[in-house]
Amino acid sequence: MSHMITVLGHKVPDTDAITSALVYSYLLNKTGQEAQAVALGECNKETLFVLQQAGFAVPEIVASLPEGSIIALTDHNELGQSIDHREHYTIHSVIDHHKVANFETGYPLMMRLEPLASTNSILYKMYKEAGVEITSQIATLMLGGILSDTLHFRSPTTTAFDKKIVDELASLAGVDDIEGFALQMFAAKSDLGDISAYDLIKKVDAKDFTFGSQKSLIACIETTNPNYCLNRKEEIIETIRTIKASESYDFIVFCVIDILNETNTTIVADEIEADIVKKVFGADTVDGLADLGNRISRKKTIVPPMEEALS
Amino acid sequence: MSHMITVLGHKVPDTDAITSALVYSYLLNKTGQEAQAVALGECNKETLFVLQQAGFAVPEIVASLPEGSIIALTDHNELGQSIDHREHYTIHSVIDHHKVANFETGYPLMMRLEPLASTNSILYKMYKEAGVEITSQIATLMLGGILSDTLHFRSPTTTAFDKKIVDELASLAGVDDIEGFALQMFAAKSDLGDISAYDLIKKVDAKDFTFGSQKSLIACIETTNPNYCLNRKEEIIETIRTIKASESYDFIVFCVIDILNETNTTIVADEIEADIVKKVFGADTVDGLADLGNRISRKKTIVPPMEEALS
Repeated sequence: MSHMITVLGHKVPDTDAITSALVYSYLLNKTGQEAQAVALGECNKETLFVLQQAGFAVPEIVASLPEGSIIALTDHNELGQSIDHREHYTIHSVIDHHKVANFETGYPLMMRLEPLASTNSILYKMYKEAGVEITSQIATLMLGGILSDTLHFRSPTTTAFDKKIVDELASLAGVDDIEGFALQMFAAKSDLGDISAYDLIKKVDAKDFTFGSQKSLIACIETTNPNYCLNRKEEIIETIRTIKASESYDFIVFCVIDILNETNTTIVADEIEADIVKKVFGADTVDGLADLGNRISRKKTIVPPMEEALS
Repeated sequence: MSHMITVLGHKVPDTDAITSALVYSYLLNKTGQEAQAVALGECNKETLFVLQQAGFAVPEIVASLPEGSIIALTDHNELGQSIDHREHYTIHSVIDHHKVANFETGYPLMMRLEPLASTNSILYKMYKEAGVEITSQIATLMLGGILSDTLHFRSPTTTAFDKKIVDELASLAGVDDIEGFALQMFAAKSDLGDISAYDLIKKVDAKDFTFGSQKSLIACIETTNPNYCLNRKEEIIETIRTIKASESYDFIVFCVIDILNETNTTIVADEIEADIVKKVFGADTVDGLADLGNRISRKKTIVPPMEEALS
């Protein structure tokens, strides 16, 4: 067990984070390394749908590992999005498609980063390079990760390569109707049930970022049913104010992303957020809401302009 | 010209830095991207020997590029070892085998890091993956980079993979006697002529590192003729003291590495350095010299213990 590699995606895991950890862990096993995937938080309903379609069990949720554990990171590299006390572990490798920040090691390691839409698209390449067969189960996980991160090609992060491999993966996975599969995923993700406003803000799809000295949280609810959030605007604003005060965020931006219509309606809790959306995106806030147009990708069209304007 | 990628290895370039920039630039060209290699400093005599054997011209030396240039980094990622004002450029990609430190971007990019002995070993994989032919000229560059960084397999950084590909590369390069080729490289590197003590410390094979808040320079002279340095001990010590004062280094460690006998005799300029080699390596300083045993790899056996003890 001493050489076991524990593979983990980021906190507040989305479908690409969970599936990439499973897919990479399987590849490591097939190339002679003992590995297991874990999760840093609960799977959302979209991810549960994909896992169920693929016939995979939900990974164990962990908050920490034994000191000295060997870990592999998928779909993230930033410290704030990773396992707590990362300095207690040895990082074996990183497979990711995000910008590089707050990442360093005292030793050389394997890092494979590419500006593709999904970590699973990089893993697809790595399977081909290693000559490891993409089974039907693995293809379903990869397909789920890619459709989720590209919003079935609606996201501006989509590359020609992501598009190119989806047909092959669907065929391997036995998925005849890709659009139908994607719509089932998005419907599952949009079913937020009676989730609390706190969990809506912090647990559905939120990531911490630091811009200059400002600590922020950018939540992006990708949904086919934006009214679920917009009808709860007052409650969400109140809860954002509470979280900012109690968890020392300088600001929190809460984007409601309509996947099918490709629009972003952002809930603006306070003056600070109103100033930021005005300064960064040129958007006015009316009645607690700002229209951010077609900015539906946190990675490509939301965070980079914030980085530029606020850092 | 607007999409031209300028490929560059680290400052104070060694053979792996120069050859990897040329080898990667060739691969980019073959895969449809306009690229050219440049150098951040003069080539050493070992590198000149390899370039001459490969029939490649010496890359242009640059200190800066037009603002907004697109760059690719080989054989390094740390800011201090890279082109000045890196923030003025867009980083297209990084191919490297060092630890990750002081590296970040505001956007996703291609990074390919592996813990192999040479950046050229990673590039070998990338040629195979892309189906690009390794010509005789390219094979000579790759062979030179790998033999240089592994000291023909003497270095503890050497992996089974580096060893495995050298025979194939030698065959492609038309090099029958690999040991003889390596000895010619090392003899060329050991011919330091009438170089000044300043250049010996700063320009032959020196890298800046920051440990905690301490700014340091670690110079490693890999030579088949250690007496060239050891006979100039007093002059080197005097010059190290001058450089520390005038260039604000907290300490400078100057390792004389006997490639053939695999020993490291370190010239210790002052009390501060003596304390460091004692604390980090348990080595006593006698008459300005400390025996660091078989620590012949800056990356594997010199810097990591310093990182651990001083950071």
